[in-house]
Amino acid sequence: MLYLIGLGLGDAKDITVKGLEIVRRCNRVYLEAYTSILTVGKEALEEFYGRKLILADREEVEQEADNILKDADTNEVAFLVVGDPFGATTHSDLILRATKLGIPYRVIHNASIMNAVGCCGLQGGQPRSSHRQDTWRPESFFDKVEKNRQSGMHTLCLLDIKIKEQSLENLIKGRKIYDPPRYMSVNQAAQQLLEIVQNRREEGEEPAITEDTLCVGLARVGTEDQKIAAGTLQQMCTVDLGGPLHSLIITGGSMHPLEKEMLSLFSISEQP
Amino acid sequence: MLYLIGLGLGDAKDITVKGLEIVRRCNRVYLEAYTSILTVGKEALEEFYGRKLILADREEVEQEADNILKDADTNEVAFLVVGDPFGATTHSDLILRATKLGIPYRVIHNASIMNAVGCCGLQGGQPRSSHRQDTWRPESFFDKVEKNRQSGMHTLCLLDIKIKEQSLENLIKGRKIYDPPRYMSVNQAAQQLLEIVQNRREEGEEPAITEDTLCVGLARVGTEDQKIAAGTLQQMCTVDLGGPLHSLIITGGSMHPLEKEMLSLFSISEQP
Repeated sequence: MLYLIGLGLGDAKDITVKGLEIVRRCNRVYLEAYTSILTVGKEALEEFYGRKLILADREEVEQEADNILKDADTNEVAFLVVGDPFGATTHSDLILRATKLGIPYRVIHNASIMNAVGCCGLQGGQPRSSHRQDTWRPESFFDKVEKNRQSGMHTLCLLDIKIKEQSLENLIKGRKIYDPPRYMSVNQAAQQLLEIVQNRREEGEEPAITEDTLCVGLARVGTEDQKIAAGTLQQMCTVDLGGPLHSLIITGGSMHPLEKEMLSLFSISEQP
Repeated sequence: MLYLIGLGLGDAKDITVKGLEIVRRCNRVYLEAYTSILTVGKEALEEFYGRKLILADREEVEQEADNILKDADTNEVAFLVVGDPFGATTHSDLILRATKLGIPYRVIHNASIMNAVGCCGLQGGQPRSSHRQDTWRPESFFDKVEKNRQSGMHTLCLLDIKIKEQSLENLIKGRKIYDPPRYMSVNQAAQQLLEIVQNRREEGEEPAITEDTLCVGLARVGTEDQKIAAGTLQQMCTVDLGGPLHSLIITGGSMHPLEKEMLSLFSISEQP
């Protein structure tokens, strides 16, 4: 097993409890030393983890990935990354190589600048916030996703969560009785988007998002049973991702070859 | 002290070591229960932390923030959030209220869907990746930032890091001698952007980014001595944020009132 473990942004104690347990039991532990910088020295990490770390610089990871992955089919190897393994730099190369060698991998996420930057008070993409915090208004949302796609940008849709909502009747009567929680699924979101595609066509438009637009459905990201499925928006209407929470990415069209290769690991196989 | 502590995305062990230490010593520990869902029950968390948790639902946080913050000037209060405190939902409300009451706050970051989503292989904003991974090409980058701003979107620029770079001479001679690491500062980035603003004007254009564009400079986010400064692009040329790593946000123009209020906590005071 190859573990990619995020170390977070601060010092040695910003590793997660789960990450620390894995580090302490792995056969070999590499520390990636080029995409970001450590705020504490390698020695401080080694002392806190109680493990020797092997420094892996850019050349090592790119040219000697096979050394890192050696025996990882029967041993446990950890690869430590400052921030999150999928923060500023993805480690697709290493994961794709492991997959080709038949070595399973697991990711232990942590904070990266990509989310921690929110501490300044600015919020992420407009589609996201309006989507999540207001009611689900697919028509206005659709325009934003289209615009993103036309600019070559992926859109991450965090799907609607309704917790402790009151029915209108209970609200009026002042009864603190709440509806059961509801979570929008990727299927529901995809179906709503496709309805808009149809509406637009009936109005004589050819929308930038169609049945064939490449999407990615994600469920329970970061948990042991997370599911990822890449396929068309049409396929997203029926893909089975299991329970909440779901997210849906509408891709931005042109993609980097590494993005394509990674997505292929999750592609929905065509039904016969 | 008010601590906002991210719990990450998985189970009880996805809290950071630092977060766990704080939870165990705080006087009161709240668990936010509405912006996301727990993958494990409150009881599982309580057992692992060895602490009773007070569930804070939407009403509690919005209407009874003062209860949460009670005595927090002399006690330690923890507010636990699934994911990152600044992931899908910012907790600006609570922070602003604490600040008004003179209560200091600290954030213990963790993974959120905003960065963990990278596990599907898709990469974040184009400006970011081209900026970081290729050479720093401010002209082409400028166009992307302009486009983002015209669409009302903030742009996060992760500034250039050069580690283990070889000089051309050493490269040609095959000598494994590396230049000292270099990290672009917010000052340098802002100066380069302003040079482009000047170039564009000399070409007769009026760029969408100017000296007066509101920006945010961030340094060492997630560490004990992080610095955040909000001000104009002109002010970013001289603001002192200390050592690396730096990031620069060029705001997207229109902002939510809560975004403005949070930024005001970090605004650069005018020199007399």
